[in-house]
Amino acid sequence: MPPGATPALPASTVGPVHIVGTGLLGTSIGIALRRLGVDVTLADASPLALAVAVELGAGRRAHVDDAGPHLIVVAVPPEVAGPVAAAQLDTHPNAIVTDVASVKAAVLDDLSAARADLTRYVGSHPMAGRERGGAAAAMADLFVGRPWVIANSGSSSPAALSAVRDLAVDLGATVVLMDADRHDAAVALVSHVPQVVASLVAARLVDATPGAVALSGQGLRDVTRIAASDPMLWAAILAGNAGPVATLLREVRDELDSTIAALDAAAEGDLGKGVAKLHDVIVRGNAGVSRIPGKHGGARADWDVVTVMVPDSPGELGRLFTEVGSAGVNLEDVDIEHAGGKPVGLTAISVLRGSGPALAATLAAAGWRILA
Amino acid sequence: MPPGATPALPASTVGPVHIVGTGLLGTSIGIALRRLGVDVTLADASPLALAVAVELGAGRRAHVDDAGPHLIVVAVPPEVAGPVAAAQLDTHPNAIVTDVASVKAAVLDDLSAARADLTRYVGSHPMAGRERGGAAAAMADLFVGRPWVIANSGSSSPAALSAVRDLAVDLGATVVLMDADRHDAAVALVSHVPQVVASLVAARLVDATPGAVALSGQGLRDVTRIAASDPMLWAAILAGNAGPVATLLREVRDELDSTIAALDAAAEGDLGKGVAKLHDVIVRGNAGVSRIPGKHGGARADWDVVTVMVPDSPGELGRLFTEVGSAGVNLEDVDIEHAGGKPVGLTAISVLRGSGPALAATLAAAGWRILA
Repeated sequence: MPPGATPALPASTVGPVHIVGTGLLGTSIGIALRRLGVDVTLADASPLALAVAVELGAGRRAHVDDAGPHLIVVAVPPEVAGPVAAAQLDTHPNAIVTDVASVKAAVLDDLSAARADLTRYVGSHPMAGRERGGAAAAMADLFVGRPWVIANSGSSSPAALSAVRDLAVDLGATVVLMDADRHDAAVALVSHVPQVVASLVAARLVDATPGAVALSGQGLRDVTRIAASDPMLWAAILAGNAGPVATLLREVRDELDSTIAALDAAAEGDLGKGVAKLHDVIVRGNAGVSRIPGKHGGARADWDVVTVMVPDSPGELGRLFTEVGSAGVNLEDVDIEHAGGKPVGLTAISVLRGSGPALAATLAAAGWRILA
Repeated sequence: MPPGATPALPASTVGPVHIVGTGLLGTSIGIALRRLGVDVTLADASPLALAVAVELGAGRRAHVDDAGPHLIVVAVPPEVAGPVAAAQLDTHPNAIVTDVASVKAAVLDDLSAARADLTRYVGSHPMAGRERGGAAAAMADLFVGRPWVIANSGSSSPAALSAVRDLAVDLGATVVLMDADRHDAAVALVSHVPQVVASLVAARLVDATPGAVALSGQGLRDVTRIAASDPMLWAAILAGNAGPVATLLREVRDELDSTIAALDAAAEGDLGKGVAKLHDVIVRGNAGVSRIPGKHGGARADWDVVTVMVPDSPGELGRLFTEVGSAGVNLEDVDIEHAGGKPVGLTAISVLRGSGPALAATLAAAGWRILA
């Protein structure tokens, strides 16, 4: 079996599945379902986008003679997810309908306003994405290991909830159940507010001198990476979750005001209101970031980390990995530091707990500089 | 010659060099100078920190019978850099003195207030650091390829400027000349403001529900990574550069206010003042982030990127690197996506322009899934 393949489990999802919108998410869902043998029909407002998705194996074009779909997946931009889902519920009175928009209360409100049949509707949000959008970036594995929120409205039938849960599980995602308001507050916190703040920090660079920008380091790169996101998509997401995002941004604004006041006090030499408050800002940030699961929220307890200095010469990084590979340890993660846009300097290699010392000794014997 | 070694060039730096403060920067400077054969003496307020630095080969303990140093490097916390530099200028009337604090105008102000001999003083700021501080994290290569700002006060003698430039060049850094005010405005922009904002976003997580935090993705991890920074060091840095940081944070605050107003308008369905303004926030962020040099400011034009799907099974990452290594291409960079704290999913491998298609074909033939 080639790497990347999954042992074939029979799909729980019952077709035909009709996917409306063949962007990144819709096309990826289609490809994954087709691999599981599920019949998939596709529709998109753009004939070109539809043709690409068909070519990529995401399903076949919907046809007027098709049997009615069992499940409809609405994968259109968030600002039209509600109206499109309402139209699908209306057109296909026996189908279960889900949408995959990244905001959930606004979609539910639109459906309620349209007096749609909410027993057959389940809002969902697969939390997967790539920096590149569009069908060409699609892949069957997009959802593997990712959270897939099912936004329980309280009105959905058990059959509808089961169908959407089966879809998420078939695609390898981890189902998370929460209501629409809790979902929207959570994504405001972990996704939408970071997006706004990253964009505002990056915007400060627009009028900066080249000399200042040249001093940029990894910290600025990390903080502003997501500022490269798609403006049209993000305007729709932010508008669709405006209330929760504004609430959190007001909290950020209030903390920012007291930080500015602390800086002003520090400039006057006030250690109490000034420096102590600045200290507190960083301490609270420490406490918050430590709650994030994953590699930047603290090293995993079951990994050893070996830090190696990689010189700025051609081939050194490849040579390092070749030697790590032949050392016979299980490589769990790699984190490469960058300077001036080049990967040079410290490379942190994570291996299973207990394998670190042997790897460090092997690499040191081969002449690599291992850091404490 | 082992990897990590540099062809021996004779040091331009004239010893003895006396380093005051054996933390990360002071110890790293000492180790690098000792490797170049320069005589280095060390001092630190902490006997323990001094002992560690001596043990690491950063130099020898200063002794009352020593000849006067030619160059003194003050590598103490930023809030005491001015007074310590003033004392060194006073104690050693023939020595050139530099400091390596990350704020420059405040240090210069302290020296002016102390009526220190500014002809023998040159402020500098090597822009290098590791997440871990202290002598134990020190390394000779810390400064290689990094900017080293020399803050020209206009009062330094040519001999003093040359000595500090020689130090930076001997340590492999790239010298950048700017005055103290421009330096402080630049680091406020590229380092201090991102730090504050990252801390404020991370602080929102302190009281978040576990369910919300569990939805964290790579975007939040990136934005908040530097929120794990040392509170004492950062309180001193922010207090020492309070004016420029406050100026920029006021700009961020004003943009935040208009973003909140736009969200409120969007919640009322106002497409013009609401959604269009949100779109503009993201567009301006796009423009800003595109100015940052390095991998996140746009892929390097001379690299091909091959994106591979790495399955979530033990050993797959190591096997991938072993096969990349045996493919005989020059590995330039690796970027591994993470899900749920595990390195799983997309791995972007950068190689020299022209080598990408062959690598992709080799990996595909070995069964790896290569993505468009």
